[in-house]
Amino acid sequence: MSNTAITLGLNTVWTVLTASMIFFMEGGFALLEAGFIRSKNHVSIIMKVLADLVFGVLAFFGVGFGLMFGKNLGGVIGSSGFFLSGQLMHLPTTIPHAAFWLFQAAFAVAAISIVSGAVAERMNFKAYLLYILVMTTVIYPVSGHWVWGSGGWLGKLGMEDFAGSTVIHAMAGFAALAGAQLIGPRIGKFGTGGRQFSFAPSNLPLAAIGTFILWFGWFGFNAGSTLNAEASDISQIAVNTLLASIAGGGSAMLYTLFRNNHADVGSTINGVLAGLVAITAGCAFVAPWAALLIGAAAGIVMIFGTVWLERLRIDDPVGAFPVHGLNGVFGTLMVGLFAIKGGLFTTGHWHLLLVQLLGTVVISIWGFGMTFVALKGIGVLVPLRVSEAEEEIGLDLSHHGTVAVYVENVRRSAPAHGSKRLPASGRTGLFFEESAES
Amino acid sequence: MSNTAITLGLNTVWTVLTASMIFFMEGGFALLEAGFIRSKNHVSIIMKVLADLVFGVLAFFGVGFGLMFGKNLGGVIGSSGFFLSGQLMHLPTTIPHAAFWLFQAAFAVAAISIVSGAVAERMNFKAYLLYILVMTTVIYPVSGHWVWGSGGWLGKLGMEDFAGSTVIHAMAGFAALAGAQLIGPRIGKFGTGGRQFSFAPSNLPLAAIGTFILWFGWFGFNAGSTLNAEASDISQIAVNTLLASIAGGGSAMLYTLFRNNHADVGSTINGVLAGLVAITAGCAFVAPWAALLIGAAAGIVMIFGTVWLERLRIDDPVGAFPVHGLNGVFGTLMVGLFAIKGGLFTTGHWHLLLVQLLGTVVISIWGFGMTFVALKGIGVLVPLRVSEAEEEIGLDLSHHGTVAVYVENVRRSAPAHGSKRLPASGRTGLFFEESAES
Amino acid sequence: MSNTAITLGLNTVWTVLTASMIFFMEGGFALLEAGFIRSKNHVSIIMKVLADLVFGVLAFFGVGFGLMFGKNLGGVIGSSGFFLSGQLMHLPTTIPHAAFWLFQAAFAVAAISIVSGAVAERMNFKAYLLYILVMTTVIYPVSGHWVWGSGGWLGKLGMEDFAGSTVIHAMAGFAALAGAQLIGPRIGKFGTGGRQFSFAPSNLPLAAIGTFILWFGWFGFNAGSTLNAEASDISQIAVNTLLASIAGGGSAMLYTLFRNNHADVGSTINGVLAGLVAITAGCAFVAPWAALLIGAAAGIVMIFGTVWLERLRIDDPVGAFPVHGLNGVFGTLMVGLFAIKGGLFTTGHWHLLLVQLLGTVVISIWGFGMTFVALKGIGVLVPLRVSEAEEEIGLDLSHHGTVAVYVENVRRSAPAHGSKRLPASGRTGLFFEESAES
Repeated sequence: MSNTAITLGLNTVWTVLTASMIFFMEGGFALLEAGFIRSKNHVSIIMKVLADLVFGVLAFFGVGFGLMFGKNLGGVIGSSGFFLSGQLMHLPTTIPHAAFWLFQAAFAVAAISIVSGAVAERMNFKAYLLYILVMTTVIYPVSGHWVWGSGGWLGKLGMEDFAGSTVIHAMAGFAALAGAQLIGPRIGKFGTGGRQFSFAPSNLPLAAIGTFILWFGWFGFNAGSTLNAEASDISQIAVNTLLASIAGGGSAMLYTLFRNNHADVGSTINGVLAGLVAITAGCAFVAPWAALLIGAAAGIVMIFGTVWLERLRIDDPVGAFPVHGLNGVFGTLMVGLFAIKGGLFTTGHWHLLLVQLLGTVVISIWGFGMTFVALKGIGVLVPLRVSEAEEEIGLDLSHHGTVAVYVENVRRSAPAHGSKRLPASGRTGLFFEESAES
Repeated sequence: MSNTAITLGLNTVWTVLTASMIFFMEGGFALLEAGFIRSKNHVSIIMKVLADLVFGVLAFFGVGFGLMFGKNLGGVIGSSGFFLSGQLMHLPTTIPHAAFWLFQAAFAVAAISIVSGAVAERMNFKAYLLYILVMTTVIYPVSGHWVWGSGGWLGKLGMEDFAGSTVIHAMAGFAALAGAQLIGPRIGKFGTGGRQFSFAPSNLPLAAIGTFILWFGWFGFNAGSTLNAEASDISQIAVNTLLASIAGGGSAMLYTLFRNNHADVGSTINGVLAGLVAITAGCAFVAPWAALLIGAAAGIVMIFGTVWLERLRIDDPVGAFPVHGLNGVFGTLMVGLFAIKGGLFTTGHWHLLLVQLLGTVVISIWGFGMTFVALKGIGVLVPLRVSEAEEEIGLDLSHHGTVAVYVENVRRSAPAHGSKRLPASGRTGLFFEESAES
Repeated sequence: MSNTAITLGLNTVWTVLTASMIFFMEGGFALLEAGFIRSKNHVSIIMKVLADLVFGVLAFFGVGFGLMFGKNLGGVIGSSGFFLSGQLMHLPTTIPHAAFWLFQAAFAVAAISIVSGAVAERMNFKAYLLYILVMTTVIYPVSGHWVWGSGGWLGKLGMEDFAGSTVIHAMAGFAALAGAQLIGPRIGKFGTGGRQFSFAPSNLPLAAIGTFILWFGWFGFNAGSTLNAEASDISQIAVNTLLASIAGGGSAMLYTLFRNNHADVGSTINGVLAGLVAITAGCAFVAPWAALLIGAAAGIVMIFGTVWLERLRIDDPVGAFPVHGLNGVFGTLMVGLFAIKGGLFTTGHWHLLLVQLLGTVVISIWGFGMTFVALKGIGVLVPLRVSEAEEEIGLDLSHHGTVAVYVENVRRSAPAHGSKRLPASGRTGLFFEESAES
């Protein structure tokens, strides 16, 4: 084989494998969110993430990809590559167009899944389906074009967002904020006189599975963004990703340990994710010590952001905004401070920091505003929110006709027949009562 | 390093990584099936999948691989390569023999695991162990040789089954049908006068984990089947795999949403899998738009197949036949219609379609018939089915001496001692009852 | 691209992908251990594994890596490479230093996670945090240097431990033994007059997820240890890894099936892991038939080791010592018997076997002794063990302020408000009681 063929093959398998890891992250989102919310809505969130894949990929295939990576029109929008065909000669030549598309489709689906958690437990399924289409057809692709599209205006200004702290996380995190605010808090979340309640996370082992899948996938997310297996910095990107993640988890864990004398698992998990989000922009641009600093600060940003959001009486059941929104912005700004090339602290130049600030603010506003408008429009067609009765009984039963977990009584061995999905037979209990000794 | 050494290294790591992903799919099978069946049989299905790996790999190592990929005898059987030694010079030279073997062993294990779901909750464990041996020693390897073996008669006729819609899925899906029919429905599944009952799926988050693992692994399953990292179509294969999967999930989701006003999670999951099964034959041969069509149709084939099977009063607890059997056949035929080279719709030629039809029918009959014969024979040695009492109490307790999940009472803090596996102490309840407010 | 650049790129992505798989194994450890222990300690073990990552990576970054792989001082310790900087020219040149570091950090975290299971359900969280630091700063790196460091004395003697049966598993397994012994058994584990009790595993599907993740990751663990994608034996290593794992699972499964007439899932899982641990030293050095033998024996070693440990009244809740400690030693010795180059059975030479014996004994004693000393020291600063009351109520509630799983009553639709983490509202029950038929 010629060197060119080998290089193309190597880059292709690198991109396909890392794209597979990013698609696997959808499982991570589904399980993490299910674990954090109440068990009467587990099926609902799983269905929303499945719908992210189904309709997100479809919309991105038909339209979104073309608007994001098609031939540039005036720095603001792409105009070719719809249905993965047409003029795409301006794309990177290190990999086939199909590989590039696959990787970008995985990113688009991640963006919409970030929003799903913030509106969990109360958003109407049909309204959510329509929102997926708007997000992956227009909202994400257009602002994405500004930074990553060939000729996008923010990219031309010099904005550096390696794997999407702003393009994906800040945009989607602010979209999540708009959704959470517009749809309103879950029944019972906020009481009178400033009182607020936390709902117990329903299944922390499930959340842990989701976390470890997300963590695994993130190596693909960041290092795969090279789209080129011969990029000299792949292993450095992976090291920075790891260091920021453990620093974020560590700062959140220690904060809760010393503040409450209880190392809190939910905070630790969100701290890890906060570190990952924050390093996503800069993983290819900063030194390992800076990755540690950025990650550690991200954990703290997440904790105070969570408290602040509750004070504002906005209900974000899984912390999508503090994790993705705030740390997407934070991580983008940190590139302006710590980038080996052009960072304020490292080189004394202000330019990069200001461009980063402009880009992340504009795109955060875009994500928030467009989502606000889109949801207002969708709300004209179908209700944005389930009814009070449906919410109380849970979306699994009211919208998907099932419960997430059904455990029959093994002792009273009545066979558990029933109608389509509803468990039947009388009283059920988890376990039998015999006592035995060896 | 020379180009030859680099190419060999690249192909080897590509094959080893994708084979690892396919082995990981066994976890997907185990959890998906556990989630769909009743919780009193969770351990039982996990043990069956572990046995698939243990005895499937062993039998394929000793005998199956040689019959499938050994030196051809008359187009019908292989005759070398037992215990991974002997004459194998006819194998592809892009990768070492060990890498080729590893990948094929992962496929063999997938084939047997497809059957495990259809006989879940009632098949005797020892009978299942014997069936694993027959399947991976003889049934799968012989028909596999016809298509994929060097000199196999169906391959010579021009049959195209890229990653096994027929070789693996249709064969195993029809074997699953034979097993489900022969062993009979679960107690209480079918009532008098045509009435039928659905058992509530026990744990949908568990099923979701399984689904996401299977989905992730399928990128390895299909794209890895190139066994060659420089194959020009790797990324196109991955894109087609993704498009068919989301189309299958989408058609099933929308069908249930509009038909029942409830988007059903079980149907969506099986729709995704149906799309994956159907595109497995053609992922390297069809255009993206065809992959979307094939996947969308596969979701509907799965739904009507499921209803039809219930009408026939055959009990397939996880839908193995509608997903793998019907869509294995369907996907194989679609290559005959949509293949860019030789498809009826794309080129106007009938030849490929007729070969595909011949191949998939012959191999489906082979899978069904050989399983029928094998189970009849095994039934002479050990009972195929557990006793009624064992089934009622659940196979976990009756066959594996344990329950899948045991939650002790944290409030009444009696330590939960007990004999080997049985929980002791008195009444157990899930949670404590204190109420608290912040 | 030049051949050199391609080779470097190929080796880098191979190392980064396999390192990601090894980090993913942390999820496997967390879930396997959670599944085996009682549900009142699920969050506790997840937090310990998260802490392994957080503090293990940090300590290895700052100090451990330098002591293990830095410039050799007298064959006993490394002295450069702290904070991933300084003189590291002696490292393998097939990959960038960052890639090498990433892979080794994943190994260090695996080592400490092996210990977490043995001290589960009773070790104080703060004491465990301090122990993580000692393990990943000093204990693991120093003995690791002896075998894998450039110029380490055991490596110079000719010890062969390809991926760490001794360096990681025996060392950490004996450390786990020291921890389990020093901290003492769980309340209620051992009665008077030699009586002993088994605690029911709390969640076997969770343990199964953990197992499949570990199994998947182990392909990266062993084959990735080549650190070189052009190593001629990558696929052979993966095949041996698979064969040993299924042989270990198979021997344990069949042993329990014929001994107790119940194929036991916990034993099968630990048998798979035992086979994996035992082949880790020899995967690159032995023939496939030897891998099968070693794996099958490992399953039996694990079973008798488990019984023997219980006789000694040492409480190792997940079997860390029989799996990792005993089979780490056993697998290391098997290299001395079966290595194609230098094995006693294969070549008649004793030298390798004696070196293996020396190395594995010395390092096992090191792991045990250093852990004993470290825990004694840590015990001066903070209690090693939680109080009796905390243990009875469970570490989740007493140390992490939460329960792992909370299922609200969907029928009595009282919204489940509550304080920070505690479920509120009155009596809760798992399921609703309606009966319905189709």
